[in-house]
Amino acid sequence: MVARGLLTFKTTPSIAATGVTAGPLEKKSPFADKFDKVYDDERCGTKTNEHAHAKMMEDACMIALSKVDSVPGDADFLLIGDLVNQMTPSNFAATTVGIPYLGMFSACATSVSSLVMAALLTESGMSTCAIAGASSQHNAVERQFRYPVEYGSQKPATSQWTVTAAGVATVTPYKKGFPSIECATIGCATDLGMTDPLNMGAAMAPAAADTLTRHLTGHGKDVSDYDVIMTGDLGKTGFELYKTLAGNQGFDVSEKFRDAGEEFYGADTAFLSGASGAGCSAAIFFTEVIDKMMAGDYKRVLLIATGALLSPLSFQQGDTIPCIAHAIELTMK
Amino acid sequence: MVARGLLTFKTTPSIAATGVTAGPLEKKSPFADKFDKVYDDERCGTKTNEHAHAKMMEDACMIALSKVDSVPGDADFLLIGDLVNQMTPSNFAATTVGIPYLGMFSACATSVSSLVMAALLTESGMSTCAIAGASSQHNAVERQFRYPVEYGSQKPATSQWTVTAAGVATVTPYKKGFPSIECATIGCATDLGMTDPLNMGAAMAPAAADTLTRHLTGHGKDVSDYDVIMTGDLGKTGFELYKTLAGNQGFDVSEKFRDAGEEFYGADTAFLSGASGAGCSAAIFFTEVIDKMMAGDYKRVLLIATGALLSPLSFQQGDTIPCIAHAIELTMK
Repeated sequence: MVARGLLTFKTTPSIAATGVTAGPLEKKSPFADKFDKVYDDERCGTKTNEHAHAKMMEDACMIALSKVDSVPGDADFLLIGDLVNQMTPSNFAATTVGIPYLGMFSACATSVSSLVMAALLTESGMSTCAIAGASSQHNAVERQFRYPVEYGSQKPATSQWTVTAAGVATVTPYKKGFPSIECATIGCATDLGMTDPLNMGAAMAPAAADTLTRHLTGHGKDVSDYDVIMTGDLGKTGFELYKTLAGNQGFDVSEKFRDAGEEFYGADTAFLSGASGAGCSAAIFFTEVIDKMMAGDYKRVLLIATGALLSPLSFQQGDTIPCIAHAIELTMK
Repeated sequence: MVARGLLTFKTTPSIAATGVTAGPLEKKSPFADKFDKVYDDERCGTKTNEHAHAKMMEDACMIALSKVDSVPGDADFLLIGDLVNQMTPSNFAATTVGIPYLGMFSACATSVSSLVMAALLTESGMSTCAIAGASSQHNAVERQFRYPVEYGSQKPATSQWTVTAAGVATVTPYKKGFPSIECATIGCATDLGMTDPLNMGAAMAPAAADTLTRHLTGHGKDVSDYDVIMTGDLGKTGFELYKTLAGNQGFDVSEKFRDAGEEFYGADTAFLSGASGAGCSAAIFFTEVIDKMMAGDYKRVLLIATGALLSPLSFQQGDTIPCIAHAIELTMK
C-alpha cells in the first residue's frame, strides 16, 4: 500500500562519502575538527559573500567526489539548494561542477529533501553517483532575511545564527560498510500562525513533531528503534518545544533526542538560541552522525531537517511562517 | 548502463489530468479557452499579489485533483515551485492543500523538473497520485526581478512578459488513454556569459540546445521521432537562436519546433519577445500539448522547459546568467 509522503528504499542506497566546508567562525563549533575544510576568510578569497557561498558548495562537492575517487564527470545528478533568493549560490556552483542539476528548496530542510531524492534516483537504477546537500553563508543569508549585518542589530534570546557551511553526501547503490538509506518521510507544510522571524525554532517545532509522528507511525517504528533522533535546526528554544510536543504524543523524549542547531556552536551563549541555516544540519548530519555510524557508535539514526518557509516579503506583509520537516532513516547493516 | 542526467521510465507513468489557472490579461492568449479558470482580477480577490499567486496554484491543484475524482487527502506528493524569493507562493499553497511537499526550483524550467520527479516517485511505486507543476504571477515576479511595475519602464524588444498562470499535472501509474511519461533528461547549468536580464531568451537558448542534444543522443532518438518538440519559454529572440544552434548540431529544425513563450500571447507585439515565467510553459504544456495528445493529433512529444537561474542581486553584482533546461518525453500508447 502506498502511504502519502512515505518512502521505503528496498535497495537501501548508501552514503559512500561526504564533503563539508565551513567559514572561519565555525571553528568555534565543537564539531569543527570533523569538517573537511574550514576557510580563514568568510569570503573564501572571492569578491562577494554570494561567490563565497557558491565556492563553499563547489569545494564540498569536489571533496565528496574525491573521497570516492571520482570527478564531476562521474556523477549522474546534483541535488542542492540554499536560502538565497532564487538559490543563485547553488546555481553558480552547479554551473562550475557541471553535473546534471535539480534545484531543491525546502529552506533549512533542503539537506534531507535532496538526500531523499538522490536515494530515489539511486533506487530507480538511474544513478550510480549522486551528490546531495545544502549550504548557507551567514552574511549572504542574514542581509536578505533580516537586517544588513553591518547594523549589528540586537537580537532576542530566541534568535538563531545562520551558519556558514556547505555539506553534501555522495549517494551510491548499496555499499557494505557505509550508512544505508532505508526509508524517509516527506513533510507537510505546517503553519500554526507564528509570525516572528527571530523565533523560527518555535515556528518549526510543530513541523518537526508532525514529521516525527508521521515517520514513526507510518513506518511502524518507535523511539526505541533508534540510537539517535536528530533534528536540525530548532535551536534551544525550538528543541524544547519540539520535545514537549513529542512527549505529549506519548513518545519517550529521552537523551536520544539531539538537535543540530542547538549543538552547532556548543555552549557559547553569543549564538543565543543556537545555529540555523541550510548548511547547519547538513554540516552536522554529514560529519557527526555519519562519523558515529562509521565508528559503530550509531547503528540506526533518524534525521529530521526542519525549514522555515518564509521570505522577507511575506514577513513584511504580515504573513505567518509556514514550516516543514523532512525525515530520513539511516542504518549500518 | 547509467547515463548521467538521463531517466527512462519502464512503467511509463501517466498524466491523468491537469489544472491550469491564469490571470485576466492571459485572456489575450490564443490558448485562453483551454485554461480551466481565468480570474477577472489579477489579485484573485486577495489582498496581495503574492496571495493571488498562491491562490492560483491552490486552485490549479484542486482542479487537477477533481478531474481524477480526488481531494488533497488522496494525493501522495506535491512537487511545485515558483520564481518568488524563497518560493513563498508555493509554500503557502502547500500549507493550504496539505499534501506532503517537495519544493522544486529550476526557475522557469520547474514545470518539467517537478514532473520528472513526480514520474520517478510514481515509477518507484511510492506514489499513486502526485501533483507537479509551477506558477508565476506577473506583478509579484516583475517587481522582484526588475523594476516596480508602477514605473512602467520601457523595455527592449528582446524582453519577455512574465505570465500570470499556474499549471499542474496529476501524475499516476500508467493509465490507458492518457499521455505517458517515457523518458527525461535533467539539464546541466549552462553559462555562456550573458548578463542582460532583459534578454533571457538569448541566455537560455544554449541550455535548450544542449539539453535537446543530450536527450536525443542519450535516448537514441531523432527529431523525426516526434510530432512536436516544444520549448518554453525562449520567446521570439531566444527561439530563433535555439533553432540556429540546433540546426548547427545537424538537427532538422522543421515546423515541429514550437516555443511556449513565443506563442503564449499570439501575435500581439505589446508583449515584445513573448512570454516567460514558470507558469508560461506549465500553462501551455498542460493544455495545448496534453489536449492535442488526448485528441490524437500528437503521438509523441518532447517538452523542454528552460530557466534563467539569476537573481536580482546576482545581476546587480555583475554576474552572468546561468541557465538550465530539462526535457521530458510523452507518448500516447
